Amino acid sequence: MKRVLTGDTPTGKLHLGHYVGTLENRIKLQNEYEMFILFADTHALTTLSSTPKMIAEYTKEVLLDNLSVGLDPKSVTFFVESAIPEIYELAAIFSMYVSHNRALRNPTIKDEIKSKGLGDQYSLGFINYPIFQAADILCVKGQVVPVGRDQEAHLEQTREIARELNKLTNSDIFPEPQALAGRVGKLIGTDGNPKMGKSLNNTIYLSDSKDEVEKRVMNMYTDPKRIHPSDPGTVEGNPVFIYLDTFAAEKDKRQIEEYKNKYKKGEVGDVEVKKFLTGILNEFLEPIRQRRAEYEKKPDLLQSILDKGNVRVREDAARTLNELKQKMGLDL
Amino acid sequence: MKRVLTGDTPTGKLHLGHYVGTLENRIKLQNEYEMFILFADTHALTTLSSTPKMIAEYTKEVLLDNLSVGLDPKSVTFFVESAIPEIYELAAIFSMYVSHNRALRNPTIKDEIKSKGLGDQYSLGFINYPIFQAADILCVKGQVVPVGRDQEAHLEQTREIARELNKLTNSDIFPEPQALAGRVGKLIGTDGNPKMGKSLNNTIYLSDSKDEVEKRVMNMYTDPKRIHPSDPGTVEGNPVFIYLDTFAAEKDKRQIEEYKNKYKKGEVGDVEVKKFLTGILNEFLEPIRQRRAEYEKKPDLLQSILDKGNVRVREDAARTLNELKQKMGLDL
Repeated sequence: MKRVLTGDTPTGKLHLGHYVGTLENRIKLQNEYEMFILFADTHALTTLSSTPKMIAEYTKEVLLDNLSVGLDPKSVTFFVESAIPEIYELAAIFSMYVSHNRALRNPTIKDEIKSKGLGDQYSLGFINYPIFQAADILCVKGQVVPVGRDQEAHLEQTREIARELNKLTNSDIFPEPQALAGRVGKLIGTDGNPKMGKSLNNTIYLSDSKDEVEKRVMNMYTDPKRIHPSDPGTVEGNPVFIYLDTFAAEKDKRQIEEYKNKYKKGEVGDVEVKKFLTGILNEFLEPIRQRRAEYEKKPDLLQSILDKGNVRVREDAARTLNELKQKMGLDL
Repeated sequence: MKRVLTGDTPTGKLHLGHYVGTLENRIKLQNEYEMFILFADTHALTTLSSTPKMIAEYTKEVLLDNLSVGLDPKSVTFFVESAIPEIYELAAIFSMYVSHNRALRNPTIKDEIKSKGLGDQYSLGFINYPIFQAADILCVKGQVVPVGRDQEAHLEQTREIARELNKLTNSDIFPEPQALAGRVGKLIGTDGNPKMGKSLNNTIYLSDSKDEVEKRVMNMYTDPKRIHPSDPGTVEGNPVFIYLDTFAAEKDKRQIEEYKNKYKKGEVGDVEVKKFLTGILNEFLEPIRQRRAEYEKKPDLLQSILDKGNVRVREDAARTLNELKQKMGLDL
């Protein structure tokens, strides 16, 4: 069975965008592959360096998010980056085989610097994190990595490192991990912003209550040119209809088509469609909430899921690191 | 007892320049301080990335060099960087609190790029190594670091990291390590080059045989303007006299003064002074060679010195890392 490595950086709770972008893919793959899900808590320091205490909190939330959508801890190995010190030694060795220039040329790093307006104010760790990511993947010899487009550059870097060290050691110690694309997977924000995020306050979290979902949907951006329910409205690019198309069950598809037609003709108000969407989303989220509530009752189980995963991955990572050092002649 | 942390990057055997620059200082300090001597094998990859197998070899040689000059494994803890994976996790955390700009502004990094003619061809690991060094020092909470002038910049960076993390965690988890300067400590090469090094082929190794020392001294650069033994010669800056002043025992000082006077007047030939220097150096190196020969007979002892040190430092480093993570709230 091939190994999948994927994960989350615990800088916040997971939301509907994460569901579409990666979680539903994980659910589908968990039985086809040997799956490892990493929580990259050290990486989270690139964002939360001044409030590191939040990272442990978010790590627990993100574990709950993963479990609540139906990832099965019996088949998936969950682990925490910082529980595996061997990852950082691997990364230290890798960093000797990546030129500083190459690290700065990473297009995703460049994009992040631009989109986050970092200017020249970023940490050395920020430049290092794609190398840590390579170590995350290669420490368990991950062969397949489900990625969004923004992660493809890091995966290319990971492959370069794998190739370089295989060549150096004249061996095939590392696989060259391949990307696995999900469904299109970029969900628009509730405010119509193509980017969704905690700081933009335009998300619906997997852990949101019924009331929170209702409030969020009722405030949703729709068609700004439409003032009265009788004005003809636009469906394309309208978050309400995008969310309906994305999260409705099969049985609701016909109703959605009807609403779309009425909306275009000015025969239905925003409020009615939003109430419908609220129902759809709460129906979608209900089993997730229930699973979450079950897990929340068992903090010991949560801890033991991580502990077990950490022990298992640490064994793997130590083996990988020793193998590399032996082949490099670094073992003393 | 205060803790001293010092060490060597195993990229070659140690020579007389190292003796003056650091080893004699270590010998003096080993009874006043709790001393840790690190062999930074991962750091050695910045130079030996394409021939990593040599690093293990050099590490053993450098351990022998340290023992042969009289460092006592009963009071000094010797350890190998790569045996302590916690060092790299510490460095990964530290790298989140060092700006990329600051890392590039490190004057020693800038000098090395210039003096080694690296242009823009250096690894990411090369930019990271002062952070690894901070982790080397701080993992055992080293308070005093005997440094050459070129290392002062790294120690300043180490102090900045210590301060930053103490402030963040509102604690005094890390000391701010202080530099300890040795005696002037820069020995000129046998060819008169102010820089001494393996690649310049202008060194006398602590492990050189009597014959090698003789050969090296006989080829030594002296006063290029002097053609015949009867020409008046220059003593100042003349490697032969510098080495005499540096390595002669007290009992030979008078003879050296006599040779200096004769040399200035053109009353003694290069060969005679060089023979004298050969004797002085071999006398100086003889007890070192003998100790080395004793240790070379006991490979198990050498291994156990490193094993014992590694176990001890790993406990310390794990404790330091846990303490930091606890105070940062990163412990899961």
